[in-house]
Amino acid sequence: MDQPKVAHADEAGAGAPFLDALAGHPTEQVPVWFMRQAGRSLPEYRALRGAGSILEALRHPDLAAEITLQPVRRYGVDAAILYSDIIVPVHAAGFGMDIVPGRGPVAEHPFRESADLARLSRFSAAEDCEYVASTVKLVAAESPVPLIGLAGAPFTVASYLIEGEPSRSFVRTKQLMHQEPGLFGALCERLVAMTVDFLAMQAGAGAQALQIFDSWVGALSEREYRRFVLPHMKEILARTSELGLPAILFGTNTNHLLGTLAETGARAIGLDFRTAIPVAVQRLGEATAVQGNLDPTICLCSYDVLEREARAVLEESRAARAYVFNLGHGVLPETDPGKLAALVEFVHDQGTAIRRDEVL
Amino acid sequence: MDQPKVAHADEAGAGAPFLDALAGHPTEQVPVWFMRQAGRSLPEYRALRGAGSILEALRHPDLAAEITLQPVRRYGVDAAILYSDIIVPVHAAGFGMDIVPGRGPVAEHPFRESADLARLSRFSAAEDCEYVASTVKLVAAESPVPLIGLAGAPFTVASYLIEGEPSRSFVRTKQLMHQEPGLFGALCERLVAMTVDFLAMQAGAGAQALQIFDSWVGALSEREYRRFVLPHMKEILARTSELGLPAILFGTNTNHLLGTLAETGARAIGLDFRTAIPVAVQRLGEATAVQGNLDPTICLCSYDVLEREARAVLEESRAARAYVFNLGHGVLPETDPGKLAALVEFVHDQGTAIRRDEVL
Repeated sequence: MDQPKVAHADEAGAGAPFLDALAGHPTEQVPVWFMRQAGRSLPEYRALRGAGSILEALRHPDLAAEITLQPVRRYGVDAAILYSDIIVPVHAAGFGMDIVPGRGPVAEHPFRESADLARLSRFSAAEDCEYVASTVKLVAAESPVPLIGLAGAPFTVASYLIEGEPSRSFVRTKQLMHQEPGLFGALCERLVAMTVDFLAMQAGAGAQALQIFDSWVGALSEREYRRFVLPHMKEILARTSELGLPAILFGTNTNHLLGTLAETGARAIGLDFRTAIPVAVQRLGEATAVQGNLDPTICLCSYDVLEREARAVLEESRAARAYVFNLGHGVLPETDPGKLAALVEFVHDQGTAIRRDEVL
Repeated sequence: MDQPKVAHADEAGAGAPFLDALAGHPTEQVPVWFMRQAGRSLPEYRALRGAGSILEALRHPDLAAEITLQPVRRYGVDAAILYSDIIVPVHAAGFGMDIVPGRGPVAEHPFRESADLARLSRFSAAEDCEYVASTVKLVAAESPVPLIGLAGAPFTVASYLIEGEPSRSFVRTKQLMHQEPGLFGALCERLVAMTVDFLAMQAGAGAQALQIFDSWVGALSEREYRRFVLPHMKEILARTSELGLPAILFGTNTNHLLGTLAETGARAIGLDFRTAIPVAVQRLGEATAVQGNLDPTICLCSYDVLEREARAVLEESRAARAYVFNLGHGVLPETDPGKLAALVEFVHDQGTAIRRDEVL
């Protein structure tokens, strides 16, 4: 097993550039991690995981902790992110979810009416997801870098419950939202409570930052976001703030929502690859840290293209006072791990000079 | 067969509010039409069409003209849009495309290398798509409202050729773009020439406006759009402008590209449902007309919700001097035609008063 490439303090996270950036500070070195760095494209992951459902794998803390740590060792990234899935709490609550390979999260009986709320009523993170706390503890004890805990945001999780499968148009979700706003609100309130409970457990077990995935919220207009989503997000972020942990909020296609996303109180916003960082900073305000946003497709191109585009992202990041390098969406499964390792090295070696506009 | 609800001048299009709006003028009545109004959700369409490929149906001008006119009769919309598909020219060129029901455009042998350019070299709209000109002539002779001709934009058509099937991540397209920019450029130049030829034929046959569908271009960053797409779009729009016809440019997820889209020279920009119209006007400038942008999902909600949301769109449209009401993407197949008819009536009856902020 390789030694981690990153220098680390005695206590994981103390003086970590990743946490400094989330606290709003410029950092000496540009911190970098990758969404979906754990699993998927790593051969050591595929060797370890074998077949079987991810939901089953997550119930084994040794396995989940090892998968979480693999990319830290191989890439030398500045943060570990928990190997998990955003449907873990609703699955653990007994809603009847599965993750079908090549298809995604599927609900046996989608959410249709108020009676379905009862199917989410019996959830306690400590009782139903104790294995997640165990995984977090194992990783926190071993990781040379801070661990990011995670959860799905109410809109995105609700969309899986309501649609019953991955969707492009979110027809049923929007119908419920507009035609039964009371029921949609009650569902989101329930999901807020579950999410806060789930994140608090991860914080208590040793996570040092949180990322909240509202991956599909870009399907809403700003008017819809303000009315149906923002209050719930404010509640979640107020509660995570009480935990003392910085939270990153990520979604795709959110260019039109950025001003509103900043109002949630998230410490950082994860940008997808569409939004130019200077434009984002203008809309988010300078107090919000920025994370992103190299197109994951670029990691499937040649090293030349990869370096040129990574450089362009770093140049754009000059507009952001506090900045974390990342992809603009998850690592694509067919990505060559060598490319990601080279990318981390490039960001660490040259990121700061590029951000300072020093000619190299 | 119902009489068209719209009053019309002796010559179709003379004094038509739709064309006035595209010319940049405020109109007495708010013009309205729907993307995908022809086909899909209309029972009279399904009765007429039967099974078989849309590409085969399009070869029958009587049939295609009738399908084009059906929504004009039923809804009283202010424009007809040609029943067609954006892959018609590449299909007619013999590239080997098909439209697979429930899946979309599929290429038998995707575009991979410069030798594949030869597979697009033999295209003449007049020779290979004569049936389209015949359809346009039939519609133009019979339609009480202006006919919109259409074509796909180079990026979106190229993505179908390169991916070989509908894609969410456009990995191969972006790889080719970044790694073989010369080849990608040559492909786009070929598609520009075909598109201009195809649109000129429709203009010559009687189309009075054009819509160019760059449906998936929102998958690019602004940097990519400027480098790989904008020059080709400028060329197309300069050439269509020489035809004397106004052109509308439409794409989804283009919020981050709006300022750049205005630089193409399009007379109007079709907005998807994500972008608030006042924001769009700010980025597009006042000289560009705006078309859009009710979420098509709303047409699957109750009349109450439909009217409330249509009103909100019309209120937002006050920011646009010249405006055409439309959906923010195509009509969903499961849409009740009665809802669309009611929507046209609402826009015609109350649109102007709402835009003038007169209390109703």
